Amino acid sequence: MNWSEQIREALHEKNYDKLYSLLEQCHPVDIAQLMEELSDDESINLFSTLEFDIALQVLEELDSNKKHLVLTNLEYNYACKLVQEMSADEMADLLGDLEEDDKRQILSLLGESKDELIDLLSYARNTAGGRMTTEFIAFPKELKAKDALDKLAELAVDAETIYYVYVVDSQGRLVGVVSLRDLILAPEETPIGDIMQTDVKKVNAQQEQEEVARLIQKYGFLALPVVDDNNVLLGIVTVDDAMTVVEEETTEDILKLSGSNVDEDMDVGQVSIWARAKRRLPWILLAICGEIISGRVIDDFSSALQTIVALSFFIPVLMDMGGNVGTQSAAIIVRGLATGELKTLSIAKNVLREAAVGIILGIVNGLLVAVITYLWQGQMLLGLVVGISMTFNLTFAAMLGTFFPLLWYKLGKDPAVASGPLVTSILDVVGLLIYFSTATWILKL
Amino acid sequence: MNWSEQIREALHEKNYDKLYSLLEQCHPVDIAQLMEELSDDESINLFSTLEFDIALQVLEELDSNKKHLVLTNLEYNYACKLVQEMSADEMADLLGDLEEDDKRQILSLLGESKDELIDLLSYARNTAGGRMTTEFIAFPKELKAKDALDKLAELAVDAETIYYVYVVDSQGRLVGVVSLRDLILAPEETPIGDIMQTDVKKVNAQQEQEEVARLIQKYGFLALPVVDDNNVLLGIVTVDDAMTVVEEETTEDILKLSGSNVDEDMDVGQVSIWARAKRRLPWILLAICGEIISGRVIDDFSSALQTIVALSFFIPVLMDMGGNVGTQSAAIIVRGLATGELKTLSIAKNVLREAAVGIILGIVNGLLVAVITYLWQGQMLLGLVVGISMTFNLTFAAMLGTFFPLLWYKLGKDPAVASGPLVTSILDVVGLLIYFSTATWILKL
Repeated sequence: MNWSEQIREALHEKNYDKLYSLLEQCHPVDIAQLMEELSDDESINLFSTLEFDIALQVLEELDSNKKHLVLTNLEYNYACKLVQEMSADEMADLLGDLEEDDKRQILSLLGESKDELIDLLSYARNTAGGRMTTEFIAFPKELKAKDALDKLAELAVDAETIYYVYVVDSQGRLVGVVSLRDLILAPEETPIGDIMQTDVKKVNAQQEQEEVARLIQKYGFLALPVVDDNNVLLGIVTVDDAMTVVEEETTEDILKLSGSNVDEDMDVGQVSIWARAKRRLPWILLAICGEIISGRVIDDFSSALQTIVALSFFIPVLMDMGGNVGTQSAAIIVRGLATGELKTLSIAKNVLREAAVGIILGIVNGLLVAVITYLWQGQMLLGLVVGISMTFNLTFAAMLGTFFPLLWYKLGKDPAVASGPLVTSILDVVGLLIYFSTATWILKL
Repeated sequence: MNWSEQIREALHEKNYDKLYSLLEQCHPVDIAQLMEELSDDESINLFSTLEFDIALQVLEELDSNKKHLVLTNLEYNYACKLVQEMSADEMADLLGDLEEDDKRQILSLLGESKDELIDLLSYARNTAGGRMTTEFIAFPKELKAKDALDKLAELAVDAETIYYVYVVDSQGRLVGVVSLRDLILAPEETPIGDIMQTDVKKVNAQQEQEEVARLIQKYGFLALPVVDDNNVLLGIVTVDDAMTVVEEETTEDILKLSGSNVDEDMDVGQVSIWARAKRRLPWILLAICGEIISGRVIDDFSSALQTIVALSFFIPVLMDMGGNVGTQSAAIIVRGLATGELKTLSIAKNVLREAAVGIILGIVNGLLVAVITYLWQGQMLLGLVVGISMTFNLTFAAMLGTFFPLLWYKLGKDPAVASGPLVTSILDVVGLLIYFSTATWILKL
């Protein structure tokens, strides 16, 4: 019997001694994960057996629905105490997720001092301001290293990170940063102003969360300060938040590339079947329109098709190859843009480079299908038609697959959105046009 | 003129005063990035103007080719000094990347004390052992908190992270961990054995790097200890390495999903055109074979096609839709597996759930294309054929797109590899079979 089954059993048997000893060995993250799997009653029961400190940590790891469930089913005073100890950014995220009624329930637990929270709620969720926590440590630059360390020890319990100490002036403006490492290394009497780094990397609260995550990753920071337009320090974004952002953004890219629309808080395991279907419909409907145009192209050349029915045998290979190569190019570009590797290159340079790749792929595949066609159908000219169409088709596919996401990116839009089904549909229409035009020209139809 | 242009100009003018003052304001990461863009001569020139400490940091950020270039073109003694100060895991990575001759050149700079390095080189690159650094801090459990802090200050310069202190017994076995935070908060005379956490999350050196990254992310650690089979502490993997792993793994997934083979050290911006084409050829060739089978299916039904040429108009829409839905399902599954959200669900449950999504998508789209077909061609029965085929086609596409990556995953293989072009090719064959079978049955051809 594994650990989570043992806990379930102890819960059902109301064997609290066993439950305590089992929970003692668990990391709060694991308890939270288990609670997501339990029924409502079970998870409330389990939660109420936790010590306050552990309960607080578990609470922060729960998803918003479970958080709300737990908080509204606990004894009122205990819930108040928990809510007041929660970090402001966690609370802001929770409130952002809840419906109006549920939100009011939670706000009633909060009592006074909601000001900080209301400030946090004013930032869009996917910005630096929306991601930041306000539990940072800031000192004036006159403070001595030794005193700073002492104060740090006092503040450590509530702060999100103690590994950076920010230095601010009397207006709260960010003037420097001292790492805990430097603080420990510094002579005791040195004012922190003397050991601080003044060239602080920071972000504005309005900046997008991807950029923030990218900076943290690039420079290997544990946290990055967030300031307003007047350089006043508002909060920090920590490295674990940055990892979450990177994860979310790549999931979004992958799903968008394959033509699924994506919600902000996507969770693959938990979305209902109907929601899943709805999310994928818009692009699919758009693709239908595109493919009806492809059908019209075939219609326009139907007399050619009636003369040589074998022409239809090669429609699948041409369509599929074009789609494959176009999607590959688009995926490479979208990924290159996301990791920042491609930002310095121009559209033209990229399109030309992918065109070269497309020409190589086109010629190799064109020759191959020409030979296959000749062997299968015994017609040299038909082989020539299929081979030539394939070469042009793949070259064009590589170029379009590169051009589209880059164009979208330069227009300030999300390159992944424009890359999947849309590119494929356009390629199908163009591919068929290339194919039948080549056929009527070479075979004189 | 921006910052990098100013540096280039100062380099060309040999205006070293200006160069020093420009470089002083730069983060080593930015200097490294600039050097990647400079010519060989320029980057060697630039590097030799850097102070030793900065040079060391810049060196660690360069890619392996630039590292080798710089190290073999510097004054010999200076290069030796740099190499000996480099962290062991950086050095192991560098040596892993170089050809035999270049490797020997670098090893000659190292002089003695290569033992640690040789140990590190024995781990496969994508394991915990290959990712770890040996610059961690470990103390015996009898050490007092105050003494530990003092020692920490001495060791801080060389350690990769000082935010966790590991506690080991006399055989070097990991028995606990103390965070710097707890160390600062503890009374000065407490032995660290009394404040350490004994339930340490750790990984074996042989474990895969994805799992390590996933653990760091899940628990929000700044570093994770790596041990051997006897629980002897070998090294640590830090959060910035974990972010790099997550990034690399998702890039791999996206490119594999679109049918590109991926090298270990893929860099979108720098791969040659020929290498790019080669990487994408194998799947494309496989897809050709699949599509030739699709062509054979059409051939088998060519008499039906000659009777009603309009049947060919709907080949594109059926093929494309099947491919879209299949790829979407595959992408959702691959992503769900990567983020760990899907690990608890069975194959059957997932396939059934996606089948339900497929049925919804199939019915909606089936009705739509049936209506479009009727309006366009004026034939009720043809509309019925296209609509029914579409419904079955999309249901099957959703199921196959789910089943394939899950099957691969359960077989212990990479689910992304089996998901892109392969699924599309199978779907094309099956889709055409469904379509023409329905047509011959309903239209009595």
